[in-house]
Amino acid sequence: MKAFYGDLRVGILGGGQLGRMLIQEAINYNVNIRVLDPDPEASCRYLCNKFVVGSLTDYETVYEFGKNLDLLTIEIEKVNVDALQKLEEEGVLVYPEPRIIRLIQDKGLQKEFFKQHGIPSAPFQLITSQASLKNASIPFPFIQKLRRDGYDGKGVYKIKSESDFENAFNEPSIIEEWVDFDKEIAVIVARNNDGETKAFPCVEMEFNPDANLVEFLISPSTLPLEVQQRAEFLALEIANSLKITGLLAVEMFLTKTGTILVNELAPRPHNSGHHTIEGNYVSQFEQHLRAIFNLPLGDIRPVSNAVMINLLGEPGFEGPAVYEGLNDILKMDGVYVHLYGKKFTKPFRKMGHVTIIDDIREKAVEKARLVQSIVKVIA
Amino acid sequence: MKAFYGDLRVGILGGGQLGRMLIQEAINYNVNIRVLDPDPEASCRYLCNKFVVGSLTDYETVYEFGKNLDLLTIEIEKVNVDALQKLEEEGVLVYPEPRIIRLIQDKGLQKEFFKQHGIPSAPFQLITSQASLKNASIPFPFIQKLRRDGYDGKGVYKIKSESDFENAFNEPSIIEEWVDFDKEIAVIVARNNDGETKAFPCVEMEFNPDANLVEFLISPSTLPLEVQQRAEFLALEIANSLKITGLLAVEMFLTKTGTILVNELAPRPHNSGHHTIEGNYVSQFEQHLRAIFNLPLGDIRPVSNAVMINLLGEPGFEGPAVYEGLNDILKMDGVYVHLYGKKFTKPFRKMGHVTIIDDIREKAVEKARLVQSIVKVIA
Repeated sequence: MKAFYGDLRVGILGGGQLGRMLIQEAINYNVNIRVLDPDPEASCRYLCNKFVVGSLTDYETVYEFGKNLDLLTIEIEKVNVDALQKLEEEGVLVYPEPRIIRLIQDKGLQKEFFKQHGIPSAPFQLITSQASLKNASIPFPFIQKLRRDGYDGKGVYKIKSESDFENAFNEPSIIEEWVDFDKEIAVIVARNNDGETKAFPCVEMEFNPDANLVEFLISPSTLPLEVQQRAEFLALEIANSLKITGLLAVEMFLTKTGTILVNELAPRPHNSGHHTIEGNYVSQFEQHLRAIFNLPLGDIRPVSNAVMINLLGEPGFEGPAVYEGLNDILKMDGVYVHLYGKKFTKPFRKMGHVTIIDDIREKAVEKARLVQSIVKVIA
Repeated sequence: MKAFYGDLRVGILGGGQLGRMLIQEAINYNVNIRVLDPDPEASCRYLCNKFVVGSLTDYETVYEFGKNLDLLTIEIEKVNVDALQKLEEEGVLVYPEPRIIRLIQDKGLQKEFFKQHGIPSAPFQLITSQASLKNASIPFPFIQKLRRDGYDGKGVYKIKSESDFENAFNEPSIIEEWVDFDKEIAVIVARNNDGETKAFPCVEMEFNPDANLVEFLISPSTLPLEVQQRAEFLALEIANSLKITGLLAVEMFLTKTGTILVNELAPRPHNSGHHTIEGNYVSQFEQHLRAIFNLPLGDIRPVSNAVMINLLGEPGFEGPAVYEGLNDILKMDGVYVHLYGKKFTKPFRKMGHVTIIDDIREKAVEKARLVQSIVKVIA
């Protein structure tokens, strides 16, 4: 590594909120950042040394953006991996490694990786089109997920009976046994290039049923310690099997019978780690930087109980965003507002998040429910 | 206030580390920032919507920079106040208020303000030149301070006997009784436009004797509660007398007889508040934003014991900065590095700071001493 770190040319593919929060931490390390994003008004637009407007999925654009950099990272998986592979061959450090992005981009490959490595996950089947649903050997109800490009609840379809087949996706997909889970939990692991790994404590999530987005996250978990350790061990095992450099977010189901099933991976900072900014000694964003710069990893312990709420665009509103109720919640102690710099709201768009910390867990939850009832992102 | 806050045109006079850390917090509130600084490579250069290179003390430059803004704040006092006054008359919100910047720019006016308002402070006398030292009615040893433009230990001269007169400043100065203090302490107060005030808990500082710069800061103080309360009360009283909008840092001496004497004021985020980023529920930077946006002020309670160390350029080194030992200190838990993005180091230049937090105060101090012995900013 070069002198710390102003001379290092670092690029991020994607200029959304994850890049924005990564930059907030990168400032502390004198890292000069270049960002590529198709949106000329992306969240990172005015917070970096150089902002390039361009497609993340176009080979030439990604290659041109990356070829004079020392290090390249991502804040979104939907990027041109062929270009990243070429850059890696030419000596640019690309973290997470292109082979890992390629694997995770494809939910089918992810599931096969789980199978090969004995990682517990819901039984599945790969299909190529709607027509193949007739041959499904998974009992109803089951879930169809597009192999590629699904995110934030998009590209997921629940099939309860044959009558749902006609509205199913007609693209390469996985179909997966419906998991009657008790909780959705997540563990974020970091691994640096020396092979040091650390897992943030397991967190519990609640999803918005309409949007299939994390709406409410509680840290640390109060699940039995044994369950938490199992989840953390599993996440570490996956990071080590992948030999990833950087962060890996592992979303899991805890079933009603106490089994943990891995749902999905994300090789980057993740919505399930936003509470770490105030809630843990090191934040997931600083941890990602430490990992990709091959620095010693930071202290993952919680500082306090933390609850994270996503500020989603209110259904029924579309246009320039107005944030209702912020004044009221700022009167409450231990409430941290993070807005993502997006001009326009639309239903369920992630516009920001709020973290609530409190020494008493019940108080943190209670305050969070109150915050949730007060703040609205409208237009 | 406009919709929160992307549409608000906010300017900062000065683009150094204080502006940089203010921007890190402003990101959370969707504040788009414009910065004016004479240095084209200032710390804030690539972190704002618009960066203007220009003099902070030139009337036209400051006026032009400010005239299309909604709100203007400062991170340094040495700015053209006439321009700010004009902008204020024309309807731009200027916080802190120009009249307060004018008062604080001049240590003579500051001292007279203390006197008028019964604020305890060392006995002083105003002089216009070296020649007036002969008529000093303050006993030896005493301190000569330039009325204007002194900072970070510059513009201060200790006079032990008449033989020191010939090297004294030949400019308008104050001379002030030498305070044989036990501790230097500081309190940072915030006041918003509604008149709500909050004081961060009192902190203790140690200075580098060669450079007269804060080198080591401990929060919270372990001084008797009565002393801390007196210091906090005094700071609040000054903020209320001034009717300042924004932060006010109040540096004080605690004398060996237990008296508190106010030393100096700074109407902005201050080195004595850097530990609040990790050490308190709200940081001084967020608190300043809340104050100038007339939002409810944040929770000033400490989260943990915090020690702050300035990373000063090592004497004997000048040139492109190299940070020695960072890898080693990042192995320690609860250690936070903040580099200020300055390319060049010189002796005692403020290049960054490190905050150490720990549940056990002695451990925090011990770790901080270790950090201090490990990290060096050389060239």
